[in-house]
Amino acid sequence: MLITDVQVTPIAFRDPPLLNAAGVHEPWALRTVVEVITDEGLSGLGETYGDLSHLTKVRECAEAIVGMDVYATHAMYARIASVVGDVVSDLHGLTGVATREKSVDRVFAAFEVACLDIQGKAAGVPVVDLLGGRVRDAVPYSAYLFYKWAAHPGDLAEPDRFGEALDPAGLVAQASLLIKEYGFSSIKLKGGVMPPEEEVEAIKALHAAFPDLPLRLDPNTAWTVETSVRVAHALDGMLQYLEDPAPDISGMAAVAREASMPLATNMCVVTPEHLPPAIAQNAVQVLLLDHHYWGGLVRSSHVASLCGTFGLGLSMHSNSHLGISLAAMTHLAAATPNLTYACDTHTPWQDGQDVVVPGSLRFVDGAVPVPSGPGLGVELDRDALAVMHEQYLRCGITSRDDQGYMRRFDPGFSTRRASW
Amino acid sequence: MLITDVQVTPIAFRDPPLLNAAGVHEPWALRTVVEVITDEGLSGLGETYGDLSHLTKVRECAEAIVGMDVYATHAMYARIASVVGDVVSDLHGLTGVATREKSVDRVFAAFEVACLDIQGKAAGVPVVDLLGGRVRDAVPYSAYLFYKWAAHPGDLAEPDRFGEALDPAGLVAQASLLIKEYGFSSIKLKGGVMPPEEEVEAIKALHAAFPDLPLRLDPNTAWTVETSVRVAHALDGMLQYLEDPAPDISGMAAVAREASMPLATNMCVVTPEHLPPAIAQNAVQVLLLDHHYWGGLVRSSHVASLCGTFGLGLSMHSNSHLGISLAAMTHLAAATPNLTYACDTHTPWQDGQDVVVPGSLRFVDGAVPVPSGPGLGVELDRDALAVMHEQYLRCGITSRDDQGYMRRFDPGFSTRRASW
Repeated sequence: MLITDVQVTPIAFRDPPLLNAAGVHEPWALRTVVEVITDEGLSGLGETYGDLSHLTKVRECAEAIVGMDVYATHAMYARIASVVGDVVSDLHGLTGVATREKSVDRVFAAFEVACLDIQGKAAGVPVVDLLGGRVRDAVPYSAYLFYKWAAHPGDLAEPDRFGEALDPAGLVAQASLLIKEYGFSSIKLKGGVMPPEEEVEAIKALHAAFPDLPLRLDPNTAWTVETSVRVAHALDGMLQYLEDPAPDISGMAAVAREASMPLATNMCVVTPEHLPPAIAQNAVQVLLLDHHYWGGLVRSSHVASLCGTFGLGLSMHSNSHLGISLAAMTHLAAATPNLTYACDTHTPWQDGQDVVVPGSLRFVDGAVPVPSGPGLGVELDRDALAVMHEQYLRCGITSRDDQGYMRRFDPGFSTRRASW
Repeated sequence: MLITDVQVTPIAFRDPPLLNAAGVHEPWALRTVVEVITDEGLSGLGETYGDLSHLTKVRECAEAIVGMDVYATHAMYARIASVVGDVVSDLHGLTGVATREKSVDRVFAAFEVACLDIQGKAAGVPVVDLLGGRVRDAVPYSAYLFYKWAAHPGDLAEPDRFGEALDPAGLVAQASLLIKEYGFSSIKLKGGVMPPEEEVEAIKALHAAFPDLPLRLDPNTAWTVETSVRVAHALDGMLQYLEDPAPDISGMAAVAREASMPLATNMCVVTPEHLPPAIAQNAVQVLLLDHHYWGGLVRSSHVASLCGTFGLGLSMHSNSHLGISLAAMTHLAAATPNLTYACDTHTPWQDGQDVVVPGSLRFVDGAVPVPSGPGLGVELDRDALAVMHEQYLRCGITSRDDQGYMRRFDPGFSTRRASW
């Protein structure tokens, strides 16, 4: 089954002012929707980052894969590697300096998911069945808490319905809202925003409010090794895992030697070359898999298997995303026997905005039942896509810049990396 | 697509008197053919070991998977694990003491291959496409040389057409025959048969006769670490890799520290739990993958990916096998980007005997073109199967016992393990 066309559509959707170590989310989050069309009338969907440098590569590769077979994903990977080329100079957000390997995996992932969507439709089975079949009928996600402002600053900004959360009480209220609406049974707090002692107090308040729910804290490497160890001791017995407290594999290894809880990462181990040194140093005990940057669903399943072989726990990382990504994550997680923790998702923060037709994705007791239709089981909402593409054209944002946006309000701000 | 029936047929086929560290091949080699039948009229083939203890488990599991979906391979693995149970006491030939994990992977593999055969037929694509598509159109295999007798001892035994090979000249003649008939462009010698110095001379003779062909030597751990290092030095620059010279991960690591050539294994790393210590000790540089004991094609692809991540080279191991296995190996190898060496196969020693209809598998310049039909691309030859099953019932052998057979002619013989 040959690819005859690939549609690449950048989109923007509203995003609340969520705070993190890099700054604050801008009013619009970007994504790119990929639609792969074949000569047999079947088409498939992928969703990936929306930053212009990435979008440019995705567009170049979209042209390059026309004519290829949807089953020839190894050959597609090789072709994309040849198109992406060697020169990559931009940053990849939280995952550090861009490399060719990272870029290839990221660009390829969107097309691979779309090809699996098509393969599933062709066989009349959901994508989870292409990955070995479901080992769980629904995939648990965690409540993803953020420190946040009440509204984006500006003349017209109105408070969003989630309200302000700048102290423990605000976070507990936010958690209550998300748990009430989604039924989550674990909680993750995005940290690296307030001084570490305040975040320790926030976790203690969450622990007091939700004593039965596992808690996680992710400061995005805002802390030094020393601070990380101090926080780890302060939160002894209170965290399911501590995520990326300090930068780099060596830093994480130093923290791991002192911390009682597992350390998780989606920052220091983000590409295959990071696995051998991280494992050799026992730097992390949990990998947060993300098919968007580990080269799609099948390559992610290889990494998941490797984690099982080496005794690493497994969860799943999330950026701001829409329903195509949520479906892909859910199929992958449902087919991963050694998924040991609930996955992350930003879904609540998109507050109903989506590019897929409503109905195929829902949360039941904090978990997303695996879509049962063929392929990903989601259908593109072309009206919503058009609206979001218009928003992209009008919003004035072409690359995510949490730091730049924050500096408009706090000129002296800079991304926190081992800052505390 | 649900499994409605599973046919399990033990078979026997003639095998020449091939010598190895465990003794000598008996006149009959055993395999088991598995045929999985579904409610949609599609069926799939698998091939596995024929030893009675294994056959018994395969039969039990064949009943246990009736009613399951052919895509639900994770669930199938779990069910087989529950059926195989904990108590396993037999040996697994060259791969050491049986464990539950090894047994489950071995039993599962045959059914998994059959399910992929069905999945491919359902989608109208070859199995290689279910594994990411072909990265090579034909899979190279190596000439697999054995020290051998002219014929099986006994009143009626006639010399086989391969002749005797008990010295360097005999091996060179054997290599010439195999290369002439199959076009192989690499050579593997099964060692551990003659004193190490004689096998060194054999490699030197092969090197002189075929100076352009990569050579490998596999004594099946017949040597001590000291002997292994001595041989490695003697063959410096002459071997593509040295396979399993000494027993155990620690022994291989000790040899690896002194040897100039890579060390390969299909004996000390045969299950996922062996990978972390072998990698930590840099005990092996090449893994000989075998889907029959690594839990089928998809799990083997995970292991292949892991080898790529850790910089291990990759080849493929072979036991005596027929066309279903050759097809499965070929599909897997064709979909493995980081296959770094030609694969092993015993195919020439079966000398045309097969359970698949002729025509879909052939050697061209030492390589097997990937069968292009849907699924495995091979069709069961039911007449041949019936004949081979009759042979199984009549041959009097129910488990491979190279040592026991050798002892009929050399009562003092025992399997060589670090014997030299």
